[in-house]
Amino acid sequence: MTTDTLPHSPTSLSEPDLAAEMSGIGRRAREAAAALALASADAKTAALAAAAAAVRVRSPQILAANARDLAEADRQGISAALRDRLALDAGRVEAIARGLEAIAALPDPAGRILAAWAQPNGLAIQRIAVPLGVIGIIYESRPNVTADAGGLALKAGNAAILRGGSESYHSSHALVAALSDGLRSAGLPGTAVQLVPTRERAAVGLMLAMDEHIDVIVPRGGRSLIERVQRESRIPVIAHLEGICHTYIDAAADPAKARAITLNAKMRRVSICGATETLLVDRQVADDHLPAILADLRAKGCELRGDVETRAIDPAVLAATEEDWRTEYLDAILSVRVVDGVDGAIAHINHYGSHHTDAIVTEDQRTAERFLREVDSAIVLVNASTQFADGGEFGMGAEIGISTQRLPPRGPVGAEQLTTYKYVVRGSGQVRP
Amino acid sequence: MTTDTLPHSPTSLSEPDLAAEMSGIGRRAREAAAALALASADAKTAALAAAAAAVRVRSPQILAANARDLAEADRQGISAALRDRLALDAGRVEAIARGLEAIAALPDPAGRILAAWAQPNGLAIQRIAVPLGVIGIIYESRPNVTADAGGLALKAGNAAILRGGSESYHSSHALVAALSDGLRSAGLPGTAVQLVPTRERAAVGLMLAMDEHIDVIVPRGGRSLIERVQRESRIPVIAHLEGICHTYIDAAADPAKARAITLNAKMRRVSICGATETLLVDRQVADDHLPAILADLRAKGCELRGDVETRAIDPAVLAATEEDWRTEYLDAILSVRVVDGVDGAIAHINHYGSHHTDAIVTEDQRTAERFLREVDSAIVLVNASTQFADGGEFGMGAEIGISTQRLPPRGPVGAEQLTTYKYVVRGSGQVRP
Repeated sequence: MTTDTLPHSPTSLSEPDLAAEMSGIGRRAREAAAALALASADAKTAALAAAAAAVRVRSPQILAANARDLAEADRQGISAALRDRLALDAGRVEAIARGLEAIAALPDPAGRILAAWAQPNGLAIQRIAVPLGVIGIIYESRPNVTADAGGLALKAGNAAILRGGSESYHSSHALVAALSDGLRSAGLPGTAVQLVPTRERAAVGLMLAMDEHIDVIVPRGGRSLIERVQRESRIPVIAHLEGICHTYIDAAADPAKARAITLNAKMRRVSICGATETLLVDRQVADDHLPAILADLRAKGCELRGDVETRAIDPAVLAATEEDWRTEYLDAILSVRVVDGVDGAIAHINHYGSHHTDAIVTEDQRTAERFLREVDSAIVLVNASTQFADGGEFGMGAEIGISTQRLPPRGPVGAEQLTTYKYVVRGSGQVRP
Repeated sequence: MTTDTLPHSPTSLSEPDLAAEMSGIGRRAREAAAALALASADAKTAALAAAAAAVRVRSPQILAANARDLAEADRQGISAALRDRLALDAGRVEAIARGLEAIAALPDPAGRILAAWAQPNGLAIQRIAVPLGVIGIIYESRPNVTADAGGLALKAGNAAILRGGSESYHSSHALVAALSDGLRSAGLPGTAVQLVPTRERAAVGLMLAMDEHIDVIVPRGGRSLIERVQRESRIPVIAHLEGICHTYIDAAADPAKARAITLNAKMRRVSICGATETLLVDRQVADDHLPAILADLRAKGCELRGDVETRAIDPAVLAATEEDWRTEYLDAILSVRVVDGVDGAIAHINHYGSHHTDAIVTEDQRTAERFLREVDSAIVLVNASTQFADGGEFGMGAEIGISTQRLPPRGPVGAEQLTTYKYVVRGSGQVRP
């Protein structure tokens, strides 16, 4: 279910009205960002704690709004999986409140002194973390993203303009009301988090052109959304593209670790971007490792697609095509390929992968270091599941997503990654010769 | 003189030939980048030192190539200022060689451990600086940019595709030959620095679409070039837009510092992006400070354009229009405005400025700190000239330019800013619960 499927929203606006509305949102966000940038760490923490309290107080309204979203989605014939992502209950609302409290408890990412030095002429130079400004976040169905994304943006001192999925429109509206309550109760502008008040797809196009009011766009969703944003945006984008993640079983792998890590990396949750999509195995040990690993996966309901050598070991494996090596299944499907040691693994990953997250299983320290160094991905792991690719698992609190772009921020994007920096130079009358 | 003015270049290629040529350059750059990323710090240092030596050895060829560029430029009727930027002599060639040696002597920006921590589950996480990959640099006339930009890209472990101004085509070609010599003599691929072998404007368009082969585009030049690149590029851009820089004289300014800093900030070199374009003066002290400051500037040949209050103090000042507050003169012209203290200065700068570099002159510590905190620019200074906005003056060695974008890199872009990072995670068999 995409944002296209609800064109006749009750909140539809004419085109000029929509443009005026968006422009007003932009101006208010810019003003709020200026206030947030100067807010104390304590004020931001208090706002997030108060927002968590407001989520709990407003729980009945949030659940009623969610029921309205679910009723509309049911009329549209939503899939069971999407319905589950959309649905809130008392436990999920409490988890949202706790998520905001966890963000509140993070250290303030703004104001950190990232570097400091003095020049021979006496100038004292500091590089200091500062907020990005106004962040436009465009995302799909899950309502909890509203609170996570808004909360992380606030923690870093930014204003946020949220454009959620149309399916979760009423739920998101109720959650943003709670965030605004929290902001106001801490003496900060409630407009520091605003929801685009329409389901019109045209609102996305308007956001992408608002370079006067929005400093960074963060799209979070499927490939078509990200690609549209990258193509159309006049504003810099922090993009999360696909996670075509690999696990490589080296000749020196511990067999028990190889089994446990592969099963977890593929099957713990198949729908997240850190799920392994391709298993690579060193030819030297393919005969030893693959039977047990493939049996584990099959027992959990995983479809297997392999190259000729894999199928020679296990004829029940389907034939993989070239396309399989380039596919992010996000499903209980794994492609399997036998490679020539760590060189073959690195070459395959750098060629077919998406530079997201890749792991090696090996007890050989030198081989591990080569893999970590030469695999050109945002996250590289040794002897751990690719499913650890997550801001929370990295200790960053929540995350807005995992950036696969090369320029920073790369990898998990938490509150710290939603800052930039400025140079502060203190002199005593210096002029340049 | 722009790249448009030499359409009938001797190196013109048909469109399909140009596309094939550019694609070949891209493939070679990608291969070279993979080798550079794995090169040791010593190898990169040796390559840069050898490149400096090659510049000296090849000095006769470089000067002959430059003479050819100058002869062509003279036929086109180049201005004296542009001719001076284009011209090389033995001293300038030696300065280019020394610039490469200075870059060689910088610490290696790749491989730095930017952060390291352990999670409760035993995972050890590091954020490590790594090269960006292939950098496409599009720049205008000055030949020394060829060596600076190529050298900085190499130092950080990147491959570079250089597209210089058509006026400096032969000079750049001779300099790139020296850089390639240096690379090869250190056992690195000479193709790690390549010059686009054509003056065709179409080559820029092809570069901006080469997202498979180029990771980041760095435009360095006038506003129309930067805007074209930002509009057309499918590749992330590190952009340097205008420097509408301000110097603000506070009520608590030391008069001698105010005079010296203002004169230097405006007149040391009027054509650089860190030159002050607008002087702001606190109303409380405008009568005291302006006469001497304006006399200094006028004596150096600076045209003055002021608001009503400035002209009341000095009637010889021309009338400034709204447009003046938004203009980067890059010339011996200064706009002058009387403001209501630091609040008025901050409001003016954040409204009219370009978020590049702004300075306050004051002896009041609290006022200085407010200015440093609230002015939303890449570089903010107290009691120092805005002309210090320069990577070299910041101790970064050379610079490719000063980024005015919000996302990192912001401010001076040296070798360190031409890296990104990856996360390296070391486990002992962890799976995610």
